[in-house]
Order: sequence, then structure tokens, then C-alpha cells
Amino acid sequence: MRDFSKDRSALALNTATLGHNLEGQGAGWSPEQVIDACAARGYGGIVFWRRELGTRAFEIGYRVRAAGMEVAGLCRTPYLTGREAGSDDEIRASIDLAAELGAPSLTIVTGGTEPGTLGLEDSRKRLTERVAHHAEYAVQTGIKLALEPLNPMFGGNRTCLFTVRDALEICREIDAPNVGIAIDVYHVWWDRTLPAAIKESTGRIFGFHLCDWLEDTSHMLLDRGMMGDGVADLKSLRRAVEDAGYKGPCEVEIFSADNWWKRPPDEVLGIIVERFQTVC
Amino acid sequence: MRDFSKDRSALALNTATLGHNLEGQGAGWSPEQVIDACAARGYGGIVFWRRELGTRAFEIGYRVRAAGMEVAGLCRTPYLTGREAGSDDEIRASIDLAAELGAPSLTIVTGGTEPGTLGLEDSRKRLTERVAHHAEYAVQTGIKLALEPLNPMFGGNRTCLFTVRDALEICREIDAPNVGIAIDVYHVWWDRTLPAAIKESTGRIFGFHLCDWLEDTSHMLLDRGMMGDGVADLKSLRRAVEDAGYKGPCEVEIFSADNWWKRPPDEVLGIIVERFQTVC
Repeated sequence: MRDFSKDRSALALNTATLGHNLEGQGAGWSPEQVIDACAARGYGGIVFWRRELGTRAFEIGYRVRAAGMEVAGLCRTPYLTGREAGSDDEIRASIDLAAELGAPSLTIVTGGTEPGTLGLEDSRKRLTERVAHHAEYAVQTGIKLALEPLNPMFGGNRTCLFTVRDALEICREIDAPNVGIAIDVYHVWWDRTLPAAIKESTGRIFGFHLCDWLEDTSHMLLDRGMMGDGVADLKSLRRAVEDAGYKGPCEVEIFSADNWWKRPPDEVLGIIVERFQTVC
Repeated sequence: MRDFSKDRSALALNTATLGHNLEGQGAGWSPEQVIDACAARGYGGIVFWRRELGTRAFEIGYRVRAAGMEVAGLCRTPYLTGREAGSDDEIRASIDLAAELGAPSLTIVTGGTEPGTLGLEDSRKRLTERVAHHAEYAVQTGIKLALEPLNPMFGGNRTCLFTVRDALEICREIDAPNVGIAIDVYHVWWDRTLPAAIKESTGRIFGFHLCDWLEDTSHMLLDRGMMGDGVADLKSLRRAVEDAGYKGPCEVEIFSADNWWKRPPDEVLGIIVERFQTVC
């Protein structure tokens, strides 16, 4: 397992952690301010969200690399299934944006249950078809697609993949070199079958996300914990992922409307570094 | 699969569906009012919560049976793990109460992560020890203990069992005739491995709970859907459970602070019957 106690190069900030940097939300920082603050603290990378980039994706990506970091990823495609699924054009545009930014991968949160269907089989079938279709385009631009399973509380309207094994089955069915999995400890820490699924995912893990599951989670979306404040066994999870060959960035992604989004971003960035080097 | 279109004898009301009948919550009905209303509509049984019984468990149980129904279960033991775990005496008292009421089974919601531990292994070990211990007492009073896995959104402070397979593993380890599983569609509908786990649970399924998972679930605890209003494949789930030998009551348990708890209880009881006979 990599030793992070003195090395921050694998540490990446997902900008959601600072409240997405949007005007009036969290820090309200510009991408440039985030880049400078992360670079100053020795972060290795940043993951952006589409809405933060506007028409400046290339410029922002360039600035990240000029600051000695990497763009670690882009969040995310429009939904591929469910009532709010995006069109093929919209999904292709998100792939283009990832390429323009210089991101190696684009996260997929699948979207929910297909309208008029019950259970998950129809949705998974539709998902597989759409991912396979867009993977062919993405591979031409060098973009990897990372399927992110979500906690089952997000069934219905946000996801039809709930475990790493769910995602792995889609990957195997599509069998494309650029279709893999993003593993977020918040979503999968509870799964007893996780170590086996991670082992079988060797070569297909495209992302690893850090935060923590708070013992008393108070809100479905916006009450994630800082690493070390919850009950997830972060070191064991990272060991499992690294034993399966993952050597990429560890992306800190904390949605926290009532706590971390209200704190000064400098403080948040500092605490992340400290926790990353001690409890992760 | 049993034909419910003309037969309501398997239909049981979990009193939580009427806001627990507590003063000022939901119906605010007495147990007697619930019993009479269910009997009048042809329900086959009722599941109570401990706090509704006071010192009248025997009397209430008697009244249910006198009305031609059965007590279908009792909710629930105090937690067995986590920060809010109950004492052995408290757990034994809940078993005594189930016996006094004449309930065949007592549901176990396990409780959360053991204090000072990360992940779930320590909590599951503690859970197994405590269930095994109390099962020995329960068997003397003819009470079955039904481990209920909860949706992973309840990890941390409410459960350390998230899937039917999680519960089945504990059952197998304890290997007592009165330790089994309560399967609630709300908690497990999303699980792709569920059909296989249900099949392996033959003989160990002590309860089956009906409600629905709403596409846009708005609250972690109190936004369950009426059968037919959500995306769970209820008929497939019931078929799987019955194929595994389950012939017991189907217990309708809907926590719904902003919808069903606000409606007149007579209306709710009527709609349950209609949905039970059509979409379940």
C-alpha cells in the first residue's frame, strides 16, 4: 500500500468538497483560485464538474498542469437511464468536454429506473447499450468512462448500480478497454462482498473516492463526512483497491451542506491534507 | 404463488402505517380501534410495536384473536449493537412481551456500528453473539427472532445487516431453529443478488414486508411508498419468497410522515386492501 504520510501526490480535490465553487455556494471560488490553493498545499490533482467549466475547459486544464498538478477527472455525464436521461448529443458533449479539459476519465452516475418499468433489469439493459455506444466514441478521444455505483438510497431516480459487483457486471458485458469503475467509499463501505468484487475488478478501477460515512447521517445527499469522522474502514478499502492494482489519484469528494461547505475553504483544504496523510 | 385477488387472509397491517397509533401521531387510534377497523376489512393480522402495548399485551393479543385475526409479529427488540444497544434485560423483556402478546416472531433491527470500531466485522461478531444468546431464551417461549436487513442508508447508527445474504450468514452461523430473516421490499428491492439469497433462505424466512420504493424518495426514514406507487417489482419479490417456501403474512409497513400518515386511517386501510389484491 502506498505511504501517504509524506507524499500528497495522489491527493486530488473534487471541487464538490468546496461547494462546487459556484457563486453563492460554498467557497464561491473561481477555478483559478481552487487551482492555486491546491497547488500551494501540494495536492496532486483536481476533479471538476461540468458546470464549472463553461467554455473554458481547455484553459482550466492547462492551468492545472501548469501548476504542476493533473486534472484527475471530470464529473460527470448526464444520466443514461431514467426519467431524466440525457440525449446522445448531450452525453457526447460531456465526453468532448473531458477531452478538452485533459481529464483521463469521465464519471458516470447512471440515472434511475427507466420510466414505466419495475425493478432494475430493463434499466440495466438500457444502461449497458448506452454505455457501450458512447464508449466507442470516448475511446477515440482517449477518455475512460468510470461507472460509479451509488448507495442504495439513491435507487429510483439516480442510479441503477448499487455495488461494485453491479458495475463490474456491466463492464464485463461491454468488455471495452475504456469502461471501468469509480469506487467511492461513501457508497460502498457497507458491502460485505466488496473485497471480492474489488479483487475481480483488477484493471478496471478508474477512480477511488475518499470521504467518510458518518454514524448519524442526517441527510441523503448532503451530509458526507470528512475522512476519519465516520465509520468506514478507509485504510482497508484503500488496501483492497491498491491490491487490485489501482495506483491512481484518491479523490476527496465531500457533499456537506451544513458543515464543510460552511467553513473557510483554506481550512477545509488543510484538514483534508492532514486526514489524507493520517487516516486514509 | 398465492392468489390474493379474492383472499385477504395473508394481509397484515403493521401499525406504523397509521403513524404508530400514538397520541398525536397519525391516526391516534387505540389498539382496539385498529383491531376493529382491520377485522371489518378482512385483514388477516396485525403487527404491533412495543410502545403501543404498555402493560396490556395479553389483552390486546386476545382481542386480535377474538376478532378472527392473528398477531402477525412484534416490532422489535432494542438494538443489539452500536452506541444505543439495549441491555440483556431489555432484550429479554421484549421477548417476554412478544410471548405475552401471542406473536410468533419478534423483529430485530440490529443497531449500528460498535463504538470505537470501523467497518462492520466487530459489529457483526457482537451481533452474532447476542442473537445466539437471546435465541436460547426465545426458543423456550416459542418466539422466533427475525433479523431484518435494512437499506444501506441506515448503516452507522441503525443496522449492520444490509442484504438478505448478510442476514443469512448470521443465521447460518448461529444455526438455531428460531433465528431467521424478515424481508422488507423497501430495504432489499435493489439487490441483484436477492433472488439467489432468498432461494438459499428457504425455511428461514419469518416475515415479508410490503410497501414500495418511491422513484423520488425525499426522506431517509419517512417517505416510503404505498404498494404500486414506486419502482420495486413487488410481484417478482413475492414470487421469490413464496418459491422459497414462505406462506406467512404479508405485512404492510409504510412510514410516510407527509402523505399516508396525514390521511384518514379508514382511507389508508381501504387503499391497502385494494393494492394488496392488485399490485402485490
